[in-house]
Amino acid sequence: MTQVGTLYGLGVGPGDPDLITLKAHAILQRVPVIAYPAPDTGDSLARAIAAPHLPGGQEEIVIRTPMVPGAFPANDVYDHYAGEIREHLNAGRDVAVLCEGDPFLYGSFMYVFSRFVDAGKVVVVPGVSSLGACAAAAGSPLVSRNQVLTVLPATLDEGELEQRIQNSAAVAVMKVGRHAAKVRAVLERLGRADTAWYVEHATMDNEKVLPLAEFSDPKAPYFSMILVREREGVTP
Amino acid sequence: MTQVGTLYGLGVGPGDPDLITLKAHAILQRVPVIAYPAPDTGDSLARAIAAPHLPGGQEEIVIRTPMVPGAFPANDVYDHYAGEIREHLNAGRDVAVLCEGDPFLYGSFMYVFSRFVDAGKVVVVPGVSSLGACAAAAGSPLVSRNQVLTVLPATLDEGELEQRIQNSAAVAVMKVGRHAAKVRAVLERLGRADTAWYVEHATMDNEKVLPLAEFSDPKAPYFSMILVREREGVTP
Repeated sequence: MTQVGTLYGLGVGPGDPDLITLKAHAILQRVPVIAYPAPDTGDSLARAIAAPHLPGGQEEIVIRTPMVPGAFPANDVYDHYAGEIREHLNAGRDVAVLCEGDPFLYGSFMYVFSRFVDAGKVVVVPGVSSLGACAAAAGSPLVSRNQVLTVLPATLDEGELEQRIQNSAAVAVMKVGRHAAKVRAVLERLGRADTAWYVEHATMDNEKVLPLAEFSDPKAPYFSMILVREREGVTP
Repeated sequence: MTQVGTLYGLGVGPGDPDLITLKAHAILQRVPVIAYPAPDTGDSLARAIAAPHLPGGQEEIVIRTPMVPGAFPANDVYDHYAGEIREHLNAGRDVAVLCEGDPFLYGSFMYVFSRFVDAGKVVVVPGVSSLGACAAAAGSPLVSRNQVLTVLPATLDEGELEQRIQNSAAVAVMKVGRHAAKVRAVLERLGRADTAWYVEHATMDNEKVLPLAEFSDPKAPYFSMILVREREGVTP
Protein backbone atom coordinates (compact mmCIF):
# COMPACT_ATOMS: atom_id res chain seq x y z
CA MET A 1 0.00 0.00 0.00
CA THR A 2 1.34 3.45 -0.81
CA GLN A 3 1.49 6.02 1.95
CA VAL A 4 -0.07 9.12 0.51
CA GLY A 5 -0.68 11.34 3.51
CA THR A 6 2.09 13.35 5.16
CA LEU A 7 3.12 12.68 8.73
CA TYR A 8 4.07 15.85 10.62
CA GLY A 9 6.10 15.93 13.80
CA LEU A 10 4.89 19.24 15.09
CA GLY A 11 6.77 21.10 17.82
CA VAL A 12 4.14 23.07 19.74
CA GLY A 13 6.59 24.77 22.10
CA PRO A 14 7.07 24.75 25.86
CA GLY A 15 3.60 25.63 27.13
CA ASP A 16 2.35 29.11 26.23
CA PRO A 17 0.11 28.54 23.19
CA ASP A 18 1.49 31.77 21.68
CA LEU A 19 4.93 30.17 21.55
CA ILE A 20 3.85 27.92 18.71
CA THR A 21 5.36 28.81 15.32
CA LEU A 22 3.42 30.25 12.40
CA LYS A 23 4.35 27.10 10.48
CA ALA A 24 2.92 24.71 13.08
CA HIS A 25 -0.13 26.92 13.41
CA ALA A 26 -0.82 26.78 9.68
CA ILE A 27 -0.47 22.98 9.65
CA LEU A 28 -2.93 22.67 12.54
CA GLN A 29 -5.47 24.64 10.50
CA ARG A 30 -5.50 22.07 7.74
CA VAL A 31 -4.72 18.57 9.01
CA PRO A 32 -7.73 16.28 9.38
CA VAL A 33 -6.04 14.12 12.05
CA ILE A 34 -3.96 14.96 15.11
CA ALA A 35 -2.22 12.58 17.50
CA TYR A 36 -0.61 13.41 20.82
CA PRO A 37 0.93 11.76 23.86
CA ALA A 38 -1.02 11.65 27.11
CA PRO A 39 -0.47 9.96 30.45
CA ASP A 40 -2.38 6.83 31.46
CA THR A 41 -5.16 8.95 32.80
CA GLY A 42 -5.55 12.69 32.55
CA ASP A 43 -4.97 15.38 29.99
CA SER A 44 -2.35 15.80 27.31
CA LEU A 45 -0.14 18.85 27.69
CA ALA A 46 0.65 18.87 23.97
CA ARG A 47 -3.04 19.00 23.12
CA ALA A 48 -3.68 21.74 25.70
CA ILE A 49 -0.97 23.87 24.06
CA ALA A 50 -2.47 23.34 20.62
CA ALA A 51 -6.11 23.69 21.72
CA PRO A 52 -6.58 27.43 20.95
CA HIS A 53 -5.29 26.80 17.43
CA LEU A 54 -7.48 23.85 16.45
CA PRO A 55 -10.24 24.68 13.98
CA GLY A 56 -12.38 21.85 15.36
CA GLY A 57 -13.69 18.73 13.69
CA GLN A 58 -10.33 16.95 13.35
CA GLU A 59 -9.97 13.30 14.31
CA GLU A 60 -7.82 12.70 17.37
CA ILE A 61 -5.55 9.83 18.33
CA VAL A 62 -4.60 9.87 22.00
CA ILE A 63 -1.28 8.08 22.45
CA ARG A 64 -1.66 6.90 26.03
CA THR A 65 1.62 5.73 27.49
CA PRO A 66 2.23 4.61 31.06
CA MET A 67 4.42 7.16 32.87
CA VAL A 68 6.57 4.95 35.03
CA PRO A 69 9.60 6.74 36.49
CA GLY A 70 12.76 5.34 34.96
CA ALA A 71 10.90 3.19 32.42
CA PHE A 72 10.23 3.79 28.75
CA PRO A 73 7.13 2.77 26.87
CA ALA A 74 6.95 -0.68 25.44
CA ASN A 75 7.30 -1.45 21.78
CA ASP A 76 3.76 -2.71 21.37
CA VAL A 77 2.22 0.52 22.65
CA TYR A 78 3.79 2.47 19.82
CA ASP A 79 3.23 -0.29 17.30
CA HIS A 80 -0.46 -0.03 18.06
CA TYR A 81 -0.68 3.76 17.63
CA ALA A 82 1.56 3.68 14.57
CA GLY A 83 -0.98 1.30 13.07
CA GLU A 84 -3.78 3.79 13.66
CA ILE A 85 -1.73 6.61 12.17
CA ARG A 86 -0.79 4.49 9.17
CA GLU A 87 -4.42 3.84 8.32
CA HIS A 88 -5.04 7.56 8.00
CA LEU A 89 -1.89 8.13 5.95
CA ASN A 90 -2.77 5.25 3.64
CA ALA A 91 -6.18 6.80 3.13
CA GLY A 92 -4.49 10.02 2.04
CA ARG A 93 -5.10 11.95 5.26
CA ASP A 94 -2.27 14.03 6.74
CA VAL A 95 -1.57 13.40 10.41
CA ALA A 96 0.12 15.86 12.78
CA VAL A 97 1.73 14.42 15.90
CA LEU A 98 1.84 17.18 18.52
CA CYS A 99 5.10 17.35 20.45
CA GLU A 100 5.79 19.46 23.52
CA GLY A 101 8.84 21.63 22.95
CA ASP A 102 10.86 20.39 19.99
CA PRO A 103 10.22 16.96 18.41
CA PHE A 104 13.87 15.94 18.22
CA LEU A 105 15.12 17.24 21.57
CA TYR A 106 14.09 14.63 24.14
CA GLY A 107 10.68 14.22 22.55
CA SER A 108 8.61 11.04 22.51
CA PHE A 109 7.98 11.71 18.81
CA MET A 110 11.04 9.65 18.00
CA TYR A 111 9.06 6.50 18.84
CA VAL A 112 6.52 7.38 16.18
CA PHE A 113 9.15 8.73 13.77
CA SER A 114 11.21 5.54 13.83
CA ARG A 115 8.20 3.62 12.54
CA PHE A 116 7.66 5.86 9.52
CA VAL A 117 11.04 7.26 8.61
CA ASP A 118 11.59 4.73 5.83
CA ALA A 119 8.00 4.75 4.63
CA GLY A 120 7.40 8.10 3.05
CA LYS A 121 6.62 11.68 3.72
CA VAL A 122 7.62 12.76 7.20
CA VAL A 123 8.04 16.47 7.93
CA VAL A 124 9.48 17.60 11.25
CA VAL A 125 8.66 21.15 12.34
CA PRO A 126 11.04 22.33 15.06
CA GLY A 127 9.57 24.09 18.07
CA VAL A 128 10.68 26.29 20.95
CA SER A 129 12.35 23.97 23.43
CA SER A 130 12.10 24.21 27.19
CA LEU A 131 15.81 25.10 27.32
CA GLY A 132 15.33 28.61 25.99
CA ALA A 133 11.94 28.93 27.66
CA CYS A 134 13.35 28.16 31.12
CA ALA A 135 16.26 30.54 30.61
CA ALA A 136 13.83 33.28 29.56
CA ALA A 137 11.65 32.57 32.60
CA ALA A 138 14.69 32.82 34.87
CA GLY A 139 15.72 36.05 33.17
CA SER A 140 19.21 34.70 32.80
CA PRO A 141 21.16 33.91 29.62
CA LEU A 142 21.97 30.21 29.73
CA VAL A 143 25.04 29.97 27.56
CA SER A 144 27.11 32.39 25.56
CA ARG A 145 30.10 32.86 23.34
CA ASN A 146 32.31 29.76 23.28
CA GLN A 147 30.92 28.09 26.38
CA VAL A 148 30.05 24.43 26.57
CA LEU A 149 26.43 23.62 27.36
CA THR A 150 25.56 20.28 28.91
CA VAL A 151 22.01 19.01 29.13
CA LEU A 152 21.65 16.30 31.74
CA PRO A 153 18.79 14.17 32.95
CA ALA A 154 18.52 14.33 36.74
CA THR A 155 18.24 10.55 36.71
CA LEU A 156 22.04 10.15 36.41
CA ASP A 157 23.75 8.90 39.53
CA GLU A 158 25.22 11.44 41.89
CA GLY A 159 28.85 10.85 40.95
CA GLU A 160 28.25 11.26 37.25
CA LEU A 161 26.09 14.34 37.77
CA GLU A 162 28.84 15.93 39.83
CA GLN A 163 31.58 15.19 37.36
CA ARG A 164 29.60 16.44 34.38
CA ILE A 165 28.40 19.62 36.06
CA GLN A 166 31.93 20.36 37.22
CA ASN A 167 33.19 20.18 33.66
CA SER A 168 30.64 22.47 32.04
CA ALA A 169 30.19 26.24 32.04
CA ALA A 170 26.45 26.01 31.55
CA VAL A 171 24.22 23.15 32.59
CA ALA A 172 20.53 22.40 32.23
CA VAL A 173 19.30 19.57 34.42
CA MET A 174 16.05 18.14 33.06
CA LYS A 175 13.48 15.74 34.49
CA VAL A 176 14.19 16.96 38.02
CA GLY A 177 11.13 15.26 39.53
CA ARG A 178 12.03 13.10 42.49
CA HIS A 179 15.74 13.84 42.03
CA ALA A 180 15.58 17.45 43.25
CA ALA A 181 17.37 16.86 46.55
CA LYS A 182 20.18 14.93 44.85
CA VAL A 183 20.80 17.65 42.28
CA ARG A 184 20.78 20.35 44.94
CA ALA A 185 23.29 18.41 47.05
CA VAL A 186 25.64 18.07 44.07
CA LEU A 187 25.42 21.78 43.23
CA GLU A 188 26.04 22.77 46.85
CA ARG A 189 29.10 20.55 46.99
CA LEU A 190 30.42 22.17 43.82
CA GLY A 191 29.73 25.67 45.13
CA ARG A 192 27.39 26.34 42.22
CA ALA A 193 24.03 26.26 43.97
CA ASP A 194 23.94 30.01 44.40
CA THR A 195 24.11 30.74 40.67
CA ALA A 196 21.43 28.16 39.85
CA TRP A 197 17.75 28.66 39.07
CA TYR A 198 14.82 26.37 39.58
CA VAL A 199 12.11 26.69 36.92
CA GLU A 200 8.82 24.82 36.86
CA HIS A 201 6.17 24.88 34.09
CA ALA A 202 8.01 27.59 32.13
CA THR A 203 5.73 29.91 30.12
CA MET A 204 2.59 28.28 31.52
CA ASP A 205 0.02 29.86 33.82
CA ASN A 206 1.47 27.95 36.76
CA GLU A 207 5.07 28.94 36.00
CA LYS A 208 7.30 29.07 39.08
CA VAL A 209 10.82 30.51 39.09
CA LEU A 210 13.09 30.58 42.10
CA PRO A 211 16.78 30.88 42.85
CA LEU A 212 17.68 27.30 43.69
CA ALA A 213 18.64 28.42 47.19
CA GLU A 214 14.96 29.23 47.82
CA PHE A 215 13.63 25.92 46.52
CA SER A 216 13.89 23.28 49.20
CA ASP A 217 11.29 20.68 48.23
CA PRO A 218 12.72 17.18 47.91
CA LYS A 219 10.56 16.59 44.83
CA ALA A 220 9.59 18.63 41.80
CA PRO A 221 7.11 18.15 38.98
CA TYR A 222 8.17 16.39 35.79
CA PHE A 223 8.19 19.64 33.84
CA SER A 224 10.89 21.35 35.85
CA MET A 225 14.48 22.24 35.20
CA ILE A 226 17.52 23.46 37.10
CA LEU A 227 19.76 25.86 35.22
CA VAL A 228 23.35 26.47 36.24
CA ARG A 229 25.64 29.14 34.85
CA GLU A 230 29.20 30.06 35.42
CA ARG A 231 29.77 33.04 37.63
CA GLU A 232 31.09 35.48 35.09
CA GLY A 233 30.16 38.87 33.80
CA VAL A 234 28.10 38.87 30.63
CA THR A 235 29.55 42.19 29.59
CA PRO A 236 31.86 41.66 26.64
CA MET B 1 14.88 59.32 34.14
CA THR B 2 12.32 56.53 34.32
CA GLN B 3 12.40 53.83 31.69
CA VAL B 4 8.88 53.55 30.44
CA GLY B 5 9.16 51.51 27.26
CA THR B 6 9.56 47.74 27.29
CA LEU B 7 12.68 46.11 25.89
CA TYR B 8 11.97 42.82 24.12
CA GLY B 9 14.56 40.18 23.37
CA LEU B 10 12.77 38.52 20.49
CA GLY B 11 13.77 35.07 19.28
CA VAL B 12 12.98 35.00 15.57
CA GLY B 13 14.00 31.37 15.04
CA PRO B 14 16.62 29.67 12.90
CA GLY B 15 15.95 31.09 9.44
CA ASP B 16 12.59 30.18 7.92
CA PRO B 17 10.38 33.22 8.61
CA ASP B 18 7.48 30.84 9.33
CA LEU B 19 9.41 29.45 12.29
CA ILE B 20 8.81 32.64 14.25
CA THR B 21 6.34 32.28 17.13
CA LEU B 22 2.88 33.84 17.22
CA LYS B 23 4.06 35.82 20.24
CA ALA B 24 7.08 37.30 18.50
CA HIS B 25 4.96 37.98 15.43
CA ALA B 26 2.41 39.94 17.46
CA ILE B 27 5.13 42.02 19.10
CA LEU B 28 6.64 42.86 15.71
CA GLN B 29 3.25 44.20 14.64
CA ARG B 30 3.20 46.80 17.35
CA VAL B 31 6.70 47.91 18.35
CA PRO B 32 7.77 51.29 16.96
CA VAL B 33 11.48 50.43 17.13
CA ILE B 34 13.46 47.33 16.21
CA ALA B 35 17.19 46.69 16.69
CA TYR B 36 19.22 43.83 15.28
CA PRO B 37 22.80 42.64 14.94
CA ALA B 38 24.53 42.88 11.58
CA PRO B 39 28.07 42.31 10.38
CA ASP B 40 30.43 45.17 9.61
CA THR B 41 29.11 45.34 6.12
CA GLY B 42 26.23 43.44 4.64
CA ASP B 43 22.80 42.32 5.69
CA SER B 44 21.41 41.20 9.01
CA LEU B 45 20.10 37.64 9.11
CA ALA B 46 17.82 38.45 12.04
CA ARG B 47 16.21 41.28 10.10
CA ALA B 48 15.83 39.11 6.99
CA ILE B 49 13.95 36.52 9.06
CA ALA B 50 11.64 39.17 10.51
CA ALA B 51 11.17 41.08 7.26
CA PRO B 52 7.93 39.42 6.07
CA HIS B 53 6.37 40.20 9.46
CA LEU B 54 7.22 43.89 9.72
CA PRO B 55 4.27 46.22 9.18
CA GLY B 56 6.63 48.95 7.93
CA GLY B 57 7.34 52.40 9.30
CA GLN B 58 9.25 51.25 12.39
CA GLU B 59 12.54 52.87 13.35
CA GLU B 60 15.54 50.59 13.01
CA ILE B 61 18.78 50.39 14.94
CA VAL B 62 21.45 48.36 13.17
CA ILE B 63 23.87 46.96 15.74
CA ARG B 64 26.97 46.63 13.61
CA THR B 65 29.62 44.51 15.25
CA PRO B 66 32.92 43.44 13.75
CA MET B 67 32.90 39.69 13.09
CA VAL B 68 36.47 38.72 13.92
CA PRO B 69 36.95 34.97 14.31
CA GLY B 70 37.74 34.18 17.92
CA ALA B 71 37.09 37.71 19.13
CA PHE B 72 34.05 39.17 20.85
CA PRO B 73 32.71 42.67 20.40
CA ALA B 74 34.15 45.44 22.47
CA ASN B 75 32.33 47.01 25.38
CA ASP B 76 32.03 50.39 23.78
CA VAL B 77 30.22 49.05 20.73
CA TYR B 78 27.36 47.78 22.90
CA ASP B 79 27.49 50.80 25.17
CA HIS B 80 26.85 52.93 22.14
CA TYR B 81 23.86 50.96 20.87
CA ALA B 82 22.47 50.55 24.39
CA GLY B 83 22.47 54.34 24.55
CA GLU B 84 20.39 54.57 21.39
CA ILE B 85 17.97 51.96 22.68
CA ARG B 86 17.71 53.72 26.03
CA GLU B 87 16.64 56.96 24.41
CA HIS B 88 13.67 55.24 22.85
CA LEU B 89 12.71 53.44 26.05
CA ASN B 90 12.97 56.66 28.03
CA ALA B 91 10.65 58.32 25.54
CA GLY B 92 8.11 55.56 26.17
CA ARG B 93 8.75 53.60 22.98
CA ASP B 94 9.01 49.81 23.11
CA VAL B 95 12.08 48.36 21.43
CA ALA B 96 12.36 44.79 20.10
CA VAL B 97 15.86 43.38 19.66
CA LEU B 98 15.70 40.66 17.00
CA CYS B 99 17.70 37.56 17.86
CA GLU B 100 18.45 34.66 15.53
CA GLY B 101 17.33 31.40 17.15
CA ASP B 102 16.77 31.83 20.86
CA PRO B 103 17.95 34.96 22.72
CA PHE B 104 19.49 33.09 25.66
CA LEU B 105 21.13 30.19 23.82
CA TYR B 106 24.40 31.55 22.43
CA GLY B 107 22.74 34.79 21.36
CA SER B 108 24.40 38.18 21.18
CA PHE B 109 21.31 39.59 22.92
CA MET B 110 23.04 38.99 26.24
CA TYR B 111 25.27 41.99 25.54
CA VAL B 112 22.22 44.22 25.27
CA PHE B 113 20.37 42.45 28.07
CA SER B 114 23.18 42.93 30.58
CA ARG B 115 22.90 46.69 30.14
CA PHE B 116 19.18 46.81 30.92
CA VAL B 117 18.47 43.93 33.24
CA ASP B 118 18.54 46.12 36.34
CA ALA B 119 16.78 49.06 34.75
CA GLY B 120 13.25 48.00 34.12
CA LYS B 121 10.95 46.12 31.85
CA VAL B 122 12.78 43.48 29.85
CA VAL B 123 10.77 40.66 28.28
CA VAL B 124 12.57 37.74 26.65
CA VAL B 125 10.59 35.74 24.09
CA PRO B 126 12.19 32.35 23.46
CA GLY B 127 12.57 31.20 19.87
CA VAL B 128 13.23 28.02 17.93
CA SER B 129 16.93 27.35 18.30
CA SER B 130 19.18 25.98 15.59
CA LEU B 131 19.63 22.78 17.64
CA GLY B 132 16.16 21.48 16.89
CA ALA B 133 16.16 23.03 13.44
CA CYS B 134 19.36 21.24 12.40
CA ALA B 135 18.11 17.92 13.78
CA ALA B 136 14.86 18.35 11.85
CA ALA B 137 16.80 19.19 8.69
CA ALA B 138 18.92 16.07 9.13
CA GLY B 139 15.79 14.01 9.74
CA SER B 140 17.41 12.52 12.79
CA PRO B 141 16.37 12.80 16.44
CA LEU B 142 19.25 14.47 18.28
CA VAL B 143 18.77 13.27 21.82
CA SER B 144 16.30 11.05 23.60
CA ARG B 145 15.28 9.47 26.83
CA ASN B 146 17.98 9.86 29.50
CA GLN B 147 20.85 10.70 27.17
CA VAL B 148 23.31 13.48 27.83
CA LEU B 149 23.45 16.22 25.20
CA THR B 150 26.59 18.29 24.86
CA VAL B 151 26.70 21.48 22.83
CA LEU B 152 30.25 22.41 21.89
CA PRO B 153 31.79 25.28 19.99
CA ALA B 154 34.13 23.97 17.29
CA THR B 155 36.68 26.49 18.52
CA LEU B 156 37.75 24.18 21.38
CA ASP B 157 41.15 22.60 20.94
CA GLU B 158 41.33 19.14 19.46
CA GLY B 159 42.05 17.29 22.70
CA GLU B 160 39.15 18.85 24.55
CA LEU B 161 36.79 18.28 21.64
CA GLU B 162 37.76 14.62 21.54
CA GLN B 163 37.35 14.06 25.25
CA ARG B 164 33.97 15.77 25.40
CA ILE B 165 32.55 14.07 22.33
CA GLN B 166 33.71 10.72 23.65
CA ASN B 167 31.80 11.26 26.87
CA SER B 168 28.46 12.25 25.38
CA ALA B 169 25.70 10.25 23.69
CA ALA B 170 24.57 13.20 21.61
CA VAL B 171 26.68 16.13 20.51
CA ALA B 172 26.00 19.30 18.58
CA VAL B 173 29.13 21.09 17.38
CA MET B 174 28.38 24.72 16.62
CA LYS B 175 30.32 27.47 14.88
CA VAL B 176 31.99 24.94 12.62
CA GLY B 177 33.39 27.54 10.22
CA ARG B 178 37.12 27.16 9.67
CA HIS B 179 37.26 24.27 12.17
CA ALA B 180 35.50 21.72 9.95
CA ALA B 181 38.58 19.61 9.21
CA LYS B 182 39.51 19.45 12.89
CA VAL B 183 36.05 18.32 13.98
CA ARG B 184 35.96 15.69 11.25
CA ALA B 185 39.36 14.34 12.25
CA VAL B 186 38.23 13.99 15.86
CA LEU B 187 35.02 12.19 14.89
CA GLU B 188 36.88 9.83 12.59
CA ARG B 189 39.33 8.98 15.35
CA LEU B 190 36.43 8.23 17.68
CA GLY B 191 34.68 6.09 15.08
CA ARG B 192 31.66 8.39 15.18
CA ALA B 193 32.00 10.16 11.84
CA ASP B 194 29.63 7.76 10.11
CA THR B 195 26.69 8.60 12.38
CA ALA B 196 27.26 12.35 12.09
CA TRP B 197 25.42 14.90 9.97
CA TYR B 198 26.61 18.17 8.54
CA VAL B 199 23.92 20.87 8.35
CA GLU B 200 24.34 24.32 6.90
CA HIS B 201 21.77 27.17 6.92
CA ALA B 202 19.05 24.96 8.41
CA THR B 203 15.48 25.88 7.36
CA MET B 204 16.74 28.56 4.96
CA ASP B 205 16.49 28.56 1.18
CA ASN B 206 20.16 27.61 0.93
CA GLU B 207 19.90 24.76 3.44
CA LYS B 208 22.43 21.99 2.89
CA VAL B 209 22.33 18.63 4.67
CA LEU B 210 24.89 15.88 4.20
CA PRO B 211 26.12 12.83 6.04
CA LEU B 212 29.43 14.09 7.42
CA ALA B 213 31.22 11.45 5.36
CA GLU B 214 30.12 13.29 2.22
CA PHE B 215 31.22 16.73 3.40
CA SER B 216 34.91 17.15 2.79
CA ASP B 217 35.43 20.92 2.67
CA PRO B 218 38.03 22.16 5.11
CA LYS B 219 35.86 25.18 5.89
CA ALA B 220 32.15 25.73 6.49
CA PRO B 221 29.98 28.82 6.84
CA TYR B 222 29.36 30.35 10.25
CA PHE B 223 25.79 29.05 10.33
CA SER B 224 26.63 25.37 10.21
CA MET B 225 26.50 22.54 12.70
CA ILE B 226 27.71 18.98 13.02
CA LEU B 227 25.36 16.63 14.84
CA VAL B 228 26.55 13.37 16.33
CA ARG B 229 24.36 10.64 17.79
CA GLU B 230 25.02 7.36 19.43
CA ARG B 231 24.58 4.33 17.25
CA GLU B 232 21.52 2.85 18.86
CA GLY B 233 18.04 1.95 17.80
CA VAL B 234 15.42 4.55 18.49
CA THR B 235 12.76 1.90 18.91
CA PRO B 236 11.81 1.63 22.55
